[in-house]
Amino acid sequence: MRPSGRAPDEMRAITIETGYTKHAEGSCLISFGETKVLCTASVERNVPPWMRGKGEGWVTGEYSMLPRATHTRGQREAAKGKQSGRTQEIQRLIGRSLRAVVDLRKLGERQITLDCDVIQADGGTRTASISGAWVALRLAVDGLMKSGDIVEDPISAKVAAISCGIYNGTPVLDLDYPEDSSADADANFVLIEGGKIAEAQATAEGAPYDEEAFLRLLRLAQMGCAQVFRAQDEATRK
Amino acid sequence: MRPSGRAPDEMRAITIETGYTKHAEGSCLISFGETKVLCTASVERNVPPWMRGKGEGWVTGEYSMLPRATHTRGQREAAKGKQSGRTQEIQRLIGRSLRAVVDLRKLGERQITLDCDVIQADGGTRTASISGAWVALRLAVDGLMKSGDIVEDPISAKVAAISCGIYNGTPVLDLDYPEDSSADADANFVLIEGGKIAEAQATAEGAPYDEEAFLRLLRLAQMGCAQVFRAQDEATRK
Amino acid sequence: MRPSGRAPDEMRAITIETGYTKHAEGSCLISFGETKVLCTASVERNVPPWMRGKGEGWVTGEYSMLPRATHTRGQREAAKGKQSGRTQEIQRLIGRSLRAVVDLRKLGERQITLDCDVIQADGGTRTASISGAWVALRLAVDGLMKSGDIVEDPISAKVAAISCGIYNGTPVLDLDYPEDSSADADANFVLIEGGKIAEAQATAEGAPYDEEAFLRLLRLAQMGCAQVFRAQDEATRK
Amino acid sequence: MRPSGRAPDEMRAITIETGYTKHAEGSCLISFGETKVLCTASVERNVPPWMRGKGEGWVTGEYSMLPRATHTRGQREAAKGKQSGRTQEIQRLIGRSLRAVVDLRKLGERQITLDCDVIQADGGTRTASISGAWVALRLAVDGLMKSGDIVEDPISAKVAAISCGIYNGTPVLDLDYPEDSSADADANFVLIEGGKIAEAQATAEGAPYDEEAFLRLLRLAQMGCAQVFRAQDEATRK
Amino acid sequence: MRPSGRAPDEMRAITIETGYTKHAEGSCLISFGETKVLCTASVERNVPPWMRGKGEGWVTGEYSMLPRATHTRGQREAAKGKQSGRTQEIQRLIGRSLRAVVDLRKLGERQITLDCDVIQADGGTRTASISGAWVALRLAVDGLMKSGDIVEDPISAKVAAISCGIYNGTPVLDLDYPEDSSADADANFVLIEGGKIAEAQATAEGAPYDEEAFLRLLRLAQMGCAQVFRAQDEATRK
Amino acid sequence: MRPSGRAPDEMRAITIETGYTKHAEGSCLISFGETKVLCTASVERNVPPWMRGKGEGWVTGEYSMLPRATHTRGQREAAKGKQSGRTQEIQRLIGRSLRAVVDLRKLGERQITLDCDVIQADGGTRTASISGAWVALRLAVDGLMKSGDIVEDPISAKVAAISCGIYNGTPVLDLDYPEDSSADADANFVLIEGGKIAEAQATAEGAPYDEEAFLRLLRLAQMGCAQVFRAQDEATRK
Repeated sequence: MRPSGRAPDEMRAITIETGYTKHAEGSCLISFGETKVLCTASVERNVPPWMRGKGEGWVTGEYSMLPRATHTRGQREAAKGKQSGRTQEIQRLIGRSLRAVVDLRKLGERQITLDCDVIQADGGTRTASISGAWVALRLAVDGLMKSGDIVEDPISAKVAAISCGIYNGTPVLDLDYPEDSSADADANFVLIEGGKIAEAQATAEGAPYDEEAFLRLLRLAQMGCAQVFRAQDEATRK
Repeated sequence: MRPSGRAPDEMRAITIETGYTKHAEGSCLISFGETKVLCTASVERNVPPWMRGKGEGWVTGEYSMLPRATHTRGQREAAKGKQSGRTQEIQRLIGRSLRAVVDLRKLGERQITLDCDVIQADGGTRTASISGAWVALRLAVDGLMKSGDIVEDPISAKVAAISCGIYNGTPVLDLDYPEDSSADADANFVLIEGGKIAEAQATAEGAPYDEEAFLRLLRLAQMGCAQVFRAQDEATRK
Repeated sequence: MRPSGRAPDEMRAITIETGYTKHAEGSCLISFGETKVLCTASVERNVPPWMRGKGEGWVTGEYSMLPRATHTRGQREAAKGKQSGRTQEIQRLIGRSLRAVVDLRKLGERQITLDCDVIQADGGTRTASISGAWVALRLAVDGLMKSGDIVEDPISAKVAAISCGIYNGTPVLDLDYPEDSSADADANFVLIEGGKIAEAQATAEGAPYDEEAFLRLLRLAQMGCAQVFRAQDEATRK
Repeated sequence: MRPSGRAPDEMRAITIETGYTKHAEGSCLISFGETKVLCTASVERNVPPWMRGKGEGWVTGEYSMLPRATHTRGQREAAKGKQSGRTQEIQRLIGRSLRAVVDLRKLGERQITLDCDVIQADGGTRTASISGAWVALRLAVDGLMKSGDIVEDPISAKVAAISCGIYNGTPVLDLDYPEDSSADADANFVLIEGGKIAEAQATAEGAPYDEEAFLRLLRLAQMGCAQVFRAQDEATRK
Repeated sequence: MRPSGRAPDEMRAITIETGYTKHAEGSCLISFGETKVLCTASVERNVPPWMRGKGEGWVTGEYSMLPRATHTRGQREAAKGKQSGRTQEIQRLIGRSLRAVVDLRKLGERQITLDCDVIQADGGTRTASISGAWVALRLAVDGLMKSGDIVEDPISAKVAAISCGIYNGTPVLDLDYPEDSSADADANFVLIEGGKIAEAQATAEGAPYDEEAFLRLLRLAQMGCAQVFRAQDEATRK
Repeated sequence: MRPSGRAPDEMRAITIETGYTKHAEGSCLISFGETKVLCTASVERNVPPWMRGKGEGWVTGEYSMLPRATHTRGQREAAKGKQSGRTQEIQRLIGRSLRAVVDLRKLGERQITLDCDVIQADGGTRTASISGAWVALRLAVDGLMKSGDIVEDPISAKVAAISCGIYNGTPVLDLDYPEDSSADADANFVLIEGGKIAEAQATAEGAPYDEEAFLRLLRLAQMGCAQVFRAQDEATRK
């Protein structure tokens, strides 16, 4: 039995509130149950130094937890003077995942930064960040197309992410914090609408897993991402 | 005329949504018009090293802007590896303002950290932070009293803050961003319910000001804080 | 009674020794009693990146305490790897105070940095820094005018600063360290010759204060700055 | 065709030279073709603060590239003042991979640090690091058992890692640098002797991949790790 | 001919003004011509962690240049966030030089920190620092003996330092800045009263030198230090 | 008697293995007994900002110890976030020593960085670094001359370094770790083939030394460097 009483293949409720902040070119507050992440897309005309003059754009991600997003307060990384390895790992994953569906040439020489700030954490913050960042990106690109700054749509498909894991010997979908903190294995999948995989990561925390378990986790992720794609669709249609 | 069409002594709408996050011992989202700050109070049993063993508590504040709280995206302080002088100045002000109404002995050997994270900025973020932090602190202390951890209420009064300034030669209350960025003088007042002053800061940005103008700014601040006290009252009564 | 035996409105002796170091374009050692600050003005042709090409100059301040300027030795900020919030707050105040009397267009595209290094501390180091920095700035600008680099005088007036506070219930002028460390309220005023105010900051350390007390502090500051203006005048006339 | 002329399922030559440095409790220089990593195991009696007094040990990994291990010189992270996100990601992976086969209680309250320093890089440095770190760990633990410091062997199995990827549309084993820098997808597998998986990571760099491709990569990794296990066996039998 | 017109073996005027600051246990302002260094000795009861509980003391040095001690303004190390290699090299030299004449057991478990802050620089700041630091140390130890905190004098002899170098082919004593910046070789000697050497460093800046030149430099240093010892003697006898 | 049984003027065995890594323009692994340092020379077309456009080159050194090069593991400087004073001192010495024999104009506007990474430490790592760096530099310059990038040889002579010291009252050559850690005095000499001195540094660790002892140390260094020059010659002739 899962602590929340959910079935093994049952997701938490997903809500996506677009236009959550007024300054960003695209923004949403995405919730997977009690996990809430504010995702904003900021469009800037400058690209990183190593990309200048190529006529191509860049898409990158940043991630942070508010200090009291978690059960006990965490020290601010700005006060510590450096970002943790975990933060940097997640930031790299967010950027990579979104670039998997963006044609950087069609974007033109501009950078879009996806800021994912966790307001409240209850497991799955990195996958919620990716799923919400896609919505913010979509909204920002819609704006660029509406204003005529971009002619061809650089986004080729939806991208969504979900965590799953092996909890008490059973593969389960969309881990919440109580599951995440005691799972035997913990996996994150980033899937592209249509069936392809952008990223698969499965880590044994307690006991190593076998190929069959891995395939079951992938199957759960495919089910979960289908629901995320629907939520993204509704949110960006409005 | 003010850009927003407000009268010189007219505040923006204040809203305070308590219980905005579930983990913090006290929390609220406070809005002054389009300025929105998430304030959380975290209670911890450890005090700073220089206070240990005295049987007294400590109250401190931290402040940050989300990177896209502003018109153009700002770089994360965690990525830069240090907090700006402005951030540190505001953090010190938040802590000092709240300690002005807290009896640290009655708090017992525990620290309460008030985290003020600006979700959206439109002028007056530091004063909104102080006003909201008081609400989060009040809620956290109410919890400590309810659970019996604290017997006597360590909070002696409400504390609120408001900005005012001289805009186009006229003293005005509660500056928004367009006013703030072109004011001749810019003041922040931290007032205690009952009429006393915890902090007064008035800075000439364009032209220096005289004593009469300063007194007019103080009068506006008193009017403004009266409204903040009412909003704090309603929010914490619920 | 004040620990020093001074009357409530009695300043400490002010001395200003100009030309204290030979390399700086302007310099002085300013003393308020046992508080001694070395102020130097350095003229450089480059302005900060965000000001380049506008034909305007910039005036900025830096502040530091020598490690044993104080009763007990403090760790060097260079060894700690960062400047404290207090240092940054004071640096910002010094720069802002001097810019209040400088026409940056008349200065031309050059930066003047006022370095204020506290040789010995006995209260009031930030206000002594501002008062001394004006002297160093005046001397440096005199040099630029003498050499013909600047035609019109960019300095419109004298600027001086003084601290005052409420000590044992009585408003007193020019706090020394024993007073500063136990005052109920602590204020710093930056005044411009002729009566205007550049900056007013009054902080309740122990008990909050009322409007009347604030006005008494301002009155004391006006008396104190009148003496500083005379000392600045003598020092720069030589 | 692969740039090196290897068959898709052909590994580079593996060599493991044990006892490469005299101070470490265990050490080896591991080579996968031109990729050479020095792995040392250091045994210390102190564990991280959050583990003290539990009677358990800890195993952790650190990773670095010598500045000229690569085609063009990279700046030292010590000179830059911080470790990159990539370095931290790899360090976390090394530690996690080895802990998957160590019973921390049998280790007793001691920490073993596996330092993996890349002497020469030609693709696959992180997987070579893990494979070599296991050898260094095995040698260090053998020493502890020989001296009687440890009674029961805390290592339950061999662990090895290998990279594979999709190059020019074909899944290939053990990418070298020319392949790695232009692969469509890039995967790292950490496998445990006997068939279980400790970690699987597959990232689309160019084009997303499908489930079938993922399974083919896993198959190649199983073949590759079988060879690594044999090499580890020979090296530690000596 | 030397730029200053001095003879090859002619020192600049040395002055030592003791008691320059009131808080330090020992202090002096030492001048070698236009080079002026403020040296303070701070006595603290705590020693570095690795020395605790041994009943021995520690003597250490710190060094800094005020930003406008030099011809052109240098950036503060506190603002840069780290101390330069040069600063650290000099700090290590100051500490080592003074420890050469101190019996750490007789000092008891206390640390004396010698802070050397360069007020004005004209060559030879590190050697002036060492020579002045000895005076500050002597005064601080005299105080400890007077108060009965120390019974036996831990200082066994005077220590002094001087720079010399090969300028235009001629070995000269006590380089000033114009000589220092164009010397072929540049040497610093730390000598102990009575004829022994604590430290000898001779660096070829332009052309390498031979043994004979080195010996001539040593001879000059012995002459120079004899004068420093006399100045130290006068300063500490007062 | 020396711990190793060597005669006072007896060096450890020197070996120099050139071409140790394949990417660097020049490289060697140099050993003095159990001390092993990997030295690489990297040629880059860009020089430091302050040298640009002068048509001259630059030669610089960097130094690091692998964490377990020593008896007990040392923390990585990259993890600590800064390089120690010792590291910076050695880096400056390496660069200065090699520039003593290079004509920077003949090098053209290119920088050669000598990276010295200590694989195993047993005393004398800085002098082994300088001696090995010369070999790496020689090989890199040979390559530049062969390819026609440089016409005239910018290297005027060999440079070598050796440590010596006073151990148990006796001057000895080429200290190993047991000697180094308990020597009374410790000296490093950088000599140029033909008899000149680039750098001499002799530090009293335990007891100060006299002129005669210094001269004996210099004599030993001359004997030792003669052997290093022969080894360098053999290594670069191959």
